[in-house]
Amino acid sequence: MDKINAVITGVGGFVPDDVLTNDDLSKMVDTTDEWIMTRVGIKERRILKDPNLSSGYMGTQAVNDLVQKTGIDPMSVEGIVCSTSTSDYHFPSTASIIAYESGCRNAYAFDIQAACAGFIFALETAANYIRSGRYKRLIVVSSEKMSSMTDYTDRATCPLFGDAGAAVLLEATTEDYGVIDTLLRTDGSGKSHLIMKAGGSLRMPSHETVDQRLHFVYQEGQAVFKRAVIDMADAAEEIVRRNGLTKDQIDWIVPHQANLRIIDAAARRLGVNKDKVMINIRKFGNTSSTTIPLCLWEWEDRLRRGDNLILAAFGAGWTWGATYLKWGYDGAKA
Amino acid sequence: MDKINAVITGVGGFVPDDVLTNDDLSKMVDTTDEWIMTRVGIKERRILKDPNLSSGYMGTQAVNDLVQKTGIDPMSVEGIVCSTSTSDYHFPSTASIIAYESGCRNAYAFDIQAACAGFIFALETAANYIRSGRYKRLIVVSSEKMSSMTDYTDRATCPLFGDAGAAVLLEATTEDYGVIDTLLRTDGSGKSHLIMKAGGSLRMPSHETVDQRLHFVYQEGQAVFKRAVIDMADAAEEIVRRNGLTKDQIDWIVPHQANLRIIDAAARRLGVNKDKVMINIRKFGNTSSTTIPLCLWEWEDRLRRGDNLILAAFGAGWTWGATYLKWGYDGAKA
Ligand SMILES: CC(C)(COP(=O)(O)OP(=O)(O)OC[C@H]1O[C@@H](n2cnc3c(N)ncnc32)[C@H](O)[C@@H]1OP(=O)(O)O)[C@@H](O)C(=O)NCCC(=O)NCCS
Ligand SMILES: CC(C)(COP(=O)(O)OP(=O)(O)OC[C@H]1O[C@@H](n2cnc3c(N)ncnc32)[C@H](O)[C@@H]1OP(=O)(O)O)[C@@H](O)C(=O)NCCC(=O)NCCS
Repeated sequence: MDKINAVITGVGGFVPDDVLTNDDLSKMVDTTDEWIMTRVGIKERRILKDPNLSSGYMGTQAVNDLVQKTGIDPMSVEGIVCSTSTSDYHFPSTASIIAYESGCRNAYAFDIQAACAGFIFALETAANYIRSGRYKRLIVVSSEKMSSMTDYTDRATCPLFGDAGAAVLLEATTEDYGVIDTLLRTDGSGKSHLIMKAGGSLRMPSHETVDQRLHFVYQEGQAVFKRAVIDMADAAEEIVRRNGLTKDQIDWIVPHQANLRIIDAAARRLGVNKDKVMINIRKFGNTSSTTIPLCLWEWEDRLRRGDNLILAAFGAGWTWGATYLKWGYDGAKA
Repeated sequence: MDKINAVITGVGGFVPDDVLTNDDLSKMVDTTDEWIMTRVGIKERRILKDPNLSSGYMGTQAVNDLVQKTGIDPMSVEGIVCSTSTSDYHFPSTASIIAYESGCRNAYAFDIQAACAGFIFALETAANYIRSGRYKRLIVVSSEKMSSMTDYTDRATCPLFGDAGAAVLLEATTEDYGVIDTLLRTDGSGKSHLIMKAGGSLRMPSHETVDQRLHFVYQEGQAVFKRAVIDMADAAEEIVRRNGLTKDQIDWIVPHQANLRIIDAAARRLGVNKDKVMINIRKFGNTSSTTIPLCLWEWEDRLRRGDNLILAAFGAGWTWGATYLKWGYDGAKA
């Protein structure tokens, strides 16, 4: 029996049309373009304004893009794994909605919650389905309507987040391409620093939780910043080291896009030139678990078969991880 | 390279002390013990009354029980996969809380949302992690504080649900034991029949959603009943057939516990005697994704190495599935 690897064979993405700029924000809260650009590196972000649409919709658009670009029959997709912190509903899953709406109606579907590291966890999960030899073709989709839980009266958090969806096709191969190695980490001591305080089973919605604005992202920025800088770089460094990669062998770093300063620090630690680092935080902000596949979607046409990619993300929990990916094809499809 | 299987090597469980009987319910809504027993088969259910405790707590208790019974070092657990529809928070994950509180502090952790079929999806997910050859010891935990989203003014749903947590240890083996085969299914056309209408990103909590009682389980009982009867039995039948099992070779059916009539119908379809069917709905009600591991926990001392178990579940989405499990050890541990 040959060893089976899971390789990405296509990327799709979707961003809403509506742009929220720093200048727009400066009319809503006491902030400036200069503060946001210096401290975070975000110029604008996309917002899904239609109140009748959410993560399920953006995920569906991303899968539609993926299906169209790769030319696969959606009925041939065996499973859909969706990472999201902004599920349309508590239940049913957002994956079940995306599977249905995108015509992947033979696919089993489930959601994964691993906060901003969700794509790395979902990708490793889907890769393990494929490595088992029992499944051949899955879609991993990340979709986040961050604006649904962003408090646009809080200047400390409202500049950070944006909405988007992105998806990758993951297929079985016996070649040495694909998801080569992944490192997954969790440290539950971080719980209180980055959390939505109400809305889960521990504190269901009430007039009080609504009045106290507890259904928004609560973040202790500096505490998160400190851990993100260390843990994301540590994870990336460890995955590089244990796969025996020299820094010249790294073609691309694909970091979670939470703060340009965190990305820069991670790149410095790895000793990799900035032109090898995928960065689109300026345009899209932090789209939680969507940032990494959204980068892949934007950079797809510049990727070449055999490129070594290092993915790294950090988020609530704490939950973080890194992946060494060997890219499987040349340039963008379709 | 030997083929690696994932085998359950221990079970833990937790139910809250507080019992809510049909007689209690008949004082709260217009119902009777006779109606509930005839139509559903539930006599009583456990309720986690402490408002400061939820799924994270029950899951932790279940993992503590599992760790204590099996005698493993919690620091040796590589990963924790938690299925829940009643996560403590939107984020971080309930799995990250359980990992931390149970002392499994080396474990990566993430949640899976696949409604009442969540345990089957989480078990297959963890099994694929192990089959990849990259991981050796995971815990799958299901924990549900169903009372947090049960409307105790609605007689059509409030008798159905109960609270509980249960966990299994899943380890690598090269023997032909463990999770032999799984069938996962999703059909997103079921969305509107079994849903929490608000509280997700599509309709965040507001005074209106609270007043309209939209943060409770909404269920069209008959529509769900019809699909559950057919799909759960179909899935179980297919997994039996494709593994070439005769009905005499089936030692145990472990069905999701939503309605005794659904369980009876599935058992009849498989032609299996009722004394081979694990049923505890009478005592615990529908604890969503926890029902199946909770049965394993209660029946553990009667299970023998080599026993053939068929697991089957159906839930919101629609999402359903079945698993053929070859049990790995004799009787209860500790
Ligand atoms: C959120 C974050 C950008 C804040 O930057 P920071 O440099 O830590 O800023 P602080 O929170 O210490 O605030 C510094 C000052 O700026 C102010 N400030 C905060 N937001 C501001 C804004 N949008 N405009 C202007 N001033 C602002 C603060 O009130 C504070 O003022 P003070 O010194 O008068 O009290 C940064 O902490 C961060 O990126 N954290 C991690 C984010 C992350 O990784 N998220 C998680 C993964 S999903
Ligand atoms: C919910 C369920 C028990 C209801 O049983 P049912 O036989 O379908 O009952 P109906 O909803 O048709 O209601 C029949 C009558 O009983 C009444 N009724 C409902 N709940 C009642 C209660 N607790 N006590 C007394 N009467 C009740 C109804 O109002 C209705 O009265 P009517 O005929 O005067 O209108 C059943 O539909 C069911 O188990 N559904 C599937 C549950 C499931 O699998 N869940 C999903 C997986 S998690």
